[in-house]
Amino acid sequence: MARIIDGRKIAESVHQETASRVEALKQRGILPKLLFTRVGEDPASKVYVGMKERMSARLGILSETVVLPDETTEAELLKKIAGWNCDEEIHGILVQAPLPSHIRESVIFSNVSPEKDVDGFHPVNVGKLVLGDPTGFVPCTPGGVIELLKAENITTKGADAVVLGRGAIVGKPMTALLSQKGPTGNATVTLCHSLTSNIEERCRQADIIIAAMGVAEFVRGSMIKSGATVIDVGVNRIADASAKSGSRLVGDVAFQEALEVAGAITPNPGGVGPMTIAMLMRNTVLAAERLTA
Amino acid sequence: MARIIDGRKIAESVHQETASRVEALKQRGILPKLLFTRVGEDPASKVYVGMKERMSARLGILSETVVLPDETTEAELLKKIAGWNCDEEIHGILVQAPLPSHIRESVIFSNVSPEKDVDGFHPVNVGKLVLGDPTGFVPCTPGGVIELLKAENITTKGADAVVLGRGAIVGKPMTALLSQKGPTGNATVTLCHSLTSNIEERCRQADIIIAAMGVAEFVRGSMIKSGATVIDVGVNRIADASAKSGSRLVGDVAFQEALEVAGAITPNPGGVGPMTIAMLMRNTVLAAERLTA
Repeated sequence: MARIIDGRKIAESVHQETASRVEALKQRGILPKLLFTRVGEDPASKVYVGMKERMSARLGILSETVVLPDETTEAELLKKIAGWNCDEEIHGILVQAPLPSHIRESVIFSNVSPEKDVDGFHPVNVGKLVLGDPTGFVPCTPGGVIELLKAENITTKGADAVVLGRGAIVGKPMTALLSQKGPTGNATVTLCHSLTSNIEERCRQADIIIAAMGVAEFVRGSMIKSGATVIDVGVNRIADASAKSGSRLVGDVAFQEALEVAGAITPNPGGVGPMTIAMLMRNTVLAAERLTA
Repeated sequence: MARIIDGRKIAESVHQETASRVEALKQRGILPKLLFTRVGEDPASKVYVGMKERMSARLGILSETVVLPDETTEAELLKKIAGWNCDEEIHGILVQAPLPSHIRESVIFSNVSPEKDVDGFHPVNVGKLVLGDPTGFVPCTPGGVIELLKAENITTKGADAVVLGRGAIVGKPMTALLSQKGPTGNATVTLCHSLTSNIEERCRQADIIIAAMGVAEFVRGSMIKSGATVIDVGVNRIADASAKSGSRLVGDVAFQEALEVAGAITPNPGGVGPMTIAMLMRNTVLAAERLTA
């Protein structure tokens, strides 16, 4: 029976450290501020931004949310961002994805000032992460996974890790972080995706599985080596007639099966999710510290 | 017996295309110019810069080489770079590594204008590569390996690839390129390094091996699956009493052994090396085209 990794508890210890850094900034007369923007009324975006606003408030970080209408053009959004980039009272800028299809996310993300890019999506921050340059911002979800592994004393050095999913937000930076030199890296990483052969067998050989494919309950118990660490990044909505809403959220891991085989496993919710927000808050304080150093 | 991949011939076809693009620029009154700089008198750097100068001349690309004394400070080099970044007649800037130990290479590379960074070492270009954004510059050696695979019709889609070595110049971008979506990607890549366990066995299972560890003749014939593609990026100087100089250059692959087992293999020299220069020339023309568009 696997140890369940308590993401909420680990996130809480990150928050405590963040709150004390907020306090130190305030003592210097600096109020860290995070600017959220979303375009249109995507329901999931509303939920996510709301959660981040509440956590900001709890930690003493000022936040402001700018909601733009669905018909906002790319040029209009870029103009807004240019203004926030120059606004000295704003330390972090978060453009909530998804954006409407007429706005190119890559153009938007690469026009947020890298110094305020607390999501870590700007190419220069992605590049710094890959190059092992610590002056950038690590994207929140893979950064949060690393913190979970660290808090649980899970050895990455020499471990065989399988990353499922090659997305820009999780899979690729996760691969870079686990591969790089240093106490939370030095793993041998195989980056798997929809065209990977023998994916079940690869998972069965892994000491660490990071599931970020976006396929509901893809990782079955039979795909996990006894004692392996399983980190579930997925959030998938599936039909469930017994639920009031007619659907429910599940991860990329079949949790009950995995629990029997794994050595340590994140629940979902309550695993990676709280860490993502914790890293966002920490990045915001880091941005404020750097911008006012 | 493996097919030997003729890097010189494939590089030559890249050069022909580059030369015609140089011609098209000249018709528009634009003379593409590449600025080389090296600090001190590292013998290998002198050889490399010399080769690149001669190839520039052959293709009609203007080049200028600025040799700075060994005692040049980081600040002095940065000032030079700032000048070249602003010089509209210069389209590409190449700072030859290694630099003296008192100059931080990461600081230098991240201060070359990304638009003139024909080596592809600037974090923003590394990030764009990882994100699959085609507006950056792909670093020359991994870009050249991709061209070799393409020219030889070696299928990467669904292939198992092992990249040996996690360096910033080859291993990491190579992993990103082979993993990404698209006709020259879609492989399942395992990034291996000095702390990887069972490295021989991993190699034996690979359809494609990219050897970039910098360990002389590390990849033996017994580590290669029958019919696999073996790309040798290594350049290592080893002692050889029978040689006039007392030493000779070898790759990361034991070529004669590998030749018996592999399906296709790069010789060394004459494999990856010529492609690296070909990609540098192509990146320079691309920079000139973009800067004058």
